[in-house]
Amino acid sequence: MSPQDADRPTPKVPRGFRDLFAADVVARREMLATLVEVYERFGFEPLDTPALEYVETLGKFLPESDTPDGGVFALRDDEDWVAMRYDLTAPLSRVVAQYGNQLTSPYRRYQMGPVWRQEKPGPGRYREFYQCDFDTVGTESMVADAEICSVVANSFEALGIDRGDYILRVNNRKVLNGVLDAIALPEDEAGQGPRLTVLRAIDKLDRLGGGGVRALLGKGRMDPSGDYTGGANLSPDQIDIVMAYLEATVEDRTQVCARLRELVGSSAVGDEGVRELEEIHELLEAMDLGPDQVVFDPSVVRGLAYYSGPVVEGVLTFDDEDGERREFGSVLGGGRYDSLVERFTGNKIPATGASIGVDRLLTALKALGRQNADRSQRPVVITVFERDRMVDYQRMANELRSAGIAAELYLGSKGFRAQLKYADKRHSPVAVIAGSNEFEKGEITLKDLRLGAKLSKTIKDREAWTEQPAQVTVARDNLVAGVRELLERHGSTEEPT
Amino acid sequence: MSPQDADRPTPKVPRGFRDLFAADVVARREMLATLVEVYERFGFEPLDTPALEYVETLGKFLPESDTPDGGVFALRDDEDWVAMRYDLTAPLSRVVAQYGNQLTSPYRRYQMGPVWRQEKPGPGRYREFYQCDFDTVGTESMVADAEICSVVANSFEALGIDRGDYILRVNNRKVLNGVLDAIALPEDEAGQGPRLTVLRAIDKLDRLGGGGVRALLGKGRMDPSGDYTGGANLSPDQIDIVMAYLEATVEDRTQVCARLRELVGSSAVGDEGVRELEEIHELLEAMDLGPDQVVFDPSVVRGLAYYSGPVVEGVLTFDDEDGERREFGSVLGGGRYDSLVERFTGNKIPATGASIGVDRLLTALKALGRQNADRSQRPVVITVFERDRMVDYQRMANELRSAGIAAELYLGSKGFRAQLKYADKRHSPVAVIAGSNEFEKGEITLKDLRLGAKLSKTIKDREAWTEQPAQVTVARDNLVAGVRELLERHGSTEEPT
Repeated sequence: MSPQDADRPTPKVPRGFRDLFAADVVARREMLATLVEVYERFGFEPLDTPALEYVETLGKFLPESDTPDGGVFALRDDEDWVAMRYDLTAPLSRVVAQYGNQLTSPYRRYQMGPVWRQEKPGPGRYREFYQCDFDTVGTESMVADAEICSVVANSFEALGIDRGDYILRVNNRKVLNGVLDAIALPEDEAGQGPRLTVLRAIDKLDRLGGGGVRALLGKGRMDPSGDYTGGANLSPDQIDIVMAYLEATVEDRTQVCARLRELVGSSAVGDEGVRELEEIHELLEAMDLGPDQVVFDPSVVRGLAYYSGPVVEGVLTFDDEDGERREFGSVLGGGRYDSLVERFTGNKIPATGASIGVDRLLTALKALGRQNADRSQRPVVITVFERDRMVDYQRMANELRSAGIAAELYLGSKGFRAQLKYADKRHSPVAVIAGSNEFEKGEITLKDLRLGAKLSKTIKDREAWTEQPAQVTVARDNLVAGVRELLERHGSTEEPT
Repeated sequence: MSPQDADRPTPKVPRGFRDLFAADVVARREMLATLVEVYERFGFEPLDTPALEYVETLGKFLPESDTPDGGVFALRDDEDWVAMRYDLTAPLSRVVAQYGNQLTSPYRRYQMGPVWRQEKPGPGRYREFYQCDFDTVGTESMVADAEICSVVANSFEALGIDRGDYILRVNNRKVLNGVLDAIALPEDEAGQGPRLTVLRAIDKLDRLGGGGVRALLGKGRMDPSGDYTGGANLSPDQIDIVMAYLEATVEDRTQVCARLRELVGSSAVGDEGVRELEEIHELLEAMDLGPDQVVFDPSVVRGLAYYSGPVVEGVLTFDDEDGERREFGSVLGGGRYDSLVERFTGNKIPATGASIGVDRLLTALKALGRQNADRSQRPVVITVFERDRMVDYQRMANELRSAGIAAELYLGSKGFRAQLKYADKRHSPVAVIAGSNEFEKGEITLKDLRLGAKLSKTIKDREAWTEQPAQVTVARDNLVAGVRELLERHGSTEEPT
């Protein structure tokens, strides 16, 4: 390496970021298009906000975490600090506060796009990822909360995730508050106190199981590494009630409501929470959403301070290729929050909504072999034999394109075999071949590359070979018709790549 | 204002940024979808890269400007400096250098997305805007250059910009170098010298006219404010030749080539440049691109150091609503460059491509009243009279959505008139009305809001009113059929909003 080489930068993507190539770009694009269709069917209209916001606009906390200002990519712009948006809710807050009455009320908007978090990257954990949010701002009606489930169920099913392969878990933060009222736990002050400790404990149910949560509700817990986490110091009776609450999930939603009603006792907020769940249940029935799609699950917390009413999360519950039941956590999260514009205006505005984690969903579907077929049109490749005939080759490409068929000339400098390899790598359906022989006779040879690929797998099937030759010769004037015939042989969709 | 209020942040979008609401989001989305279709028809495949790149990856200069490192939004990530991409070519360079042989060669990729520039914002000049790039990497063939014109012409026409309403101007940097050889102007050294001064002068032809350029080619020029710009100090004879070169544009492309051949004299690079233009002309003919679509224009420079061969720019040339000819500058720019990966690997790789400025194009089309109709589906609004009947209303929404019709319940707390206003503001096509009366009779009233809007404009037309009542009552069971009939009255597309 010469000293000059040492000065050269290494071409690499920043840590925690990634490039997407053709198949993945198409998969995401198709997923977004499907979600647009579903979201708009529910009356949500699109909004687009900038990648950067003033830091004060973003507020101090990421939702669903305790991370303070850190965790965002921030930079100075003249006098001001700006930061890349870390979610699509903070921009919505800003828009609602900024445009006020110019917006309809309620305001039903969706937004899709990347968000950025300056967090430690890990396997499958990127610092740039897409979110697809929909929210209804300015309503207290439980219809908006119940509809979240319908939007999501319709989205999943439109994406090819069948009923039974996903489950939505709904809870209401008011019910938990009612239970904590019922065990006479004091309210927190200034965002700190015993209730937050209980919430934190409950939030770890998935990871620690019932025993771990019990310990954290009581005196605390030592983890295998020797780290000690302080507990909420509840009495055994109090712990029993909280644990009974956590275990109240059964398949019948009305039974869950009945059980929760017992547990909240005479708490007013608890009663309100249960009544809201009952109303949601009725609305879910009206939308034909059964217990195999939506369950009431008191263990769902979803973040610590953010949500104020119903909350929802969604997971995939596929059997994988080995027949094992696998759960892909949290491809959907949402709920009701009332602090949307309070930071700006001092007023509470009720809002509710959810966010589908598109990149997580894509990863899950890919891991499960459930990706939709890539339906993007791959180009017919016109191979080049006679370099002084480029104008003639170009005319072929032009004819195909004018007929709506994706096509390109091979523009490299390599020979025929390399050109066919190139066409394969492009997943090209057809190669057009014209050498001096063909030009002389006014003919063109067409090679069916998809058939070639199939035949090389099942080469024994001699009959198919004869019936569907992988290569045909047609008159030059029949280029478009000939190519179209080969394209239609295999139907309009391609194999997944 | 209380002291507490003073602490509250003002909700505003960062300087130079903007929010897009429904109609504009849809317009951009549809434009991108059209470009995807055209780009893929030409065999370009999608690529997506992160918003952030290492600063060394981006290099020192913005293309088409002398701006150094400044001009980008940069921030520190641990030890490293990263910056938001300012174009889509720098990420392409990094990808080609990073993935090398894993990519096909040639590599034909397109990328669409926002880029960010920390420049002074102005009217219509934002710091975040979309670019749609397509490039062919790894070929010296003029086919790739000529195809740029076909991609763009097809894109514009697919976007509803008719032949005659746009013009593409093609030049070749080699020809200009040949002319500078012919007048015996010394080569620049280390990116500075007389040739750069000449380039800068030519680049100002649009703004200063022939006289201004003449002055800058000679002794220099004092502008009206008294600022003095030094000149290239060419002799009168040299200036005449450069001016003759600039004025060589005529409608016939072969005539331009003939004139340029005279001007480059015996310069080898000039001769090569003219031959390339001749080849491009032949290929343009093969793609049926006439002189009303593509001209050869020697005054096109497009940036100072970046391009090495053919360059192209595209402008719209609409007549505006007052019949005035207006030109919207530079909605398309591109050309051939060979320094793509040199910074990383030391090797030159030939590449050529172009970028459509989608946001500029949208602004131009909007200013010219040429925006496409908004074909997005707006929701049927189900008005709410009986608040204890939400489940029944929800069932109606669910039926409509299940039939593929966008629908929503009014979820605010206001009365009927306000609900209809809400529906109007949402551009809702139909309002569903069901009060106690309707529930009793098992009926539903449907209000045709688009007809209502039309009638209120032409209220004299009594007959139309009678034939197409703005309000109909149908049996509850016929909700979907009734709504569908009203939707189909006005065809499938809506008026532009």
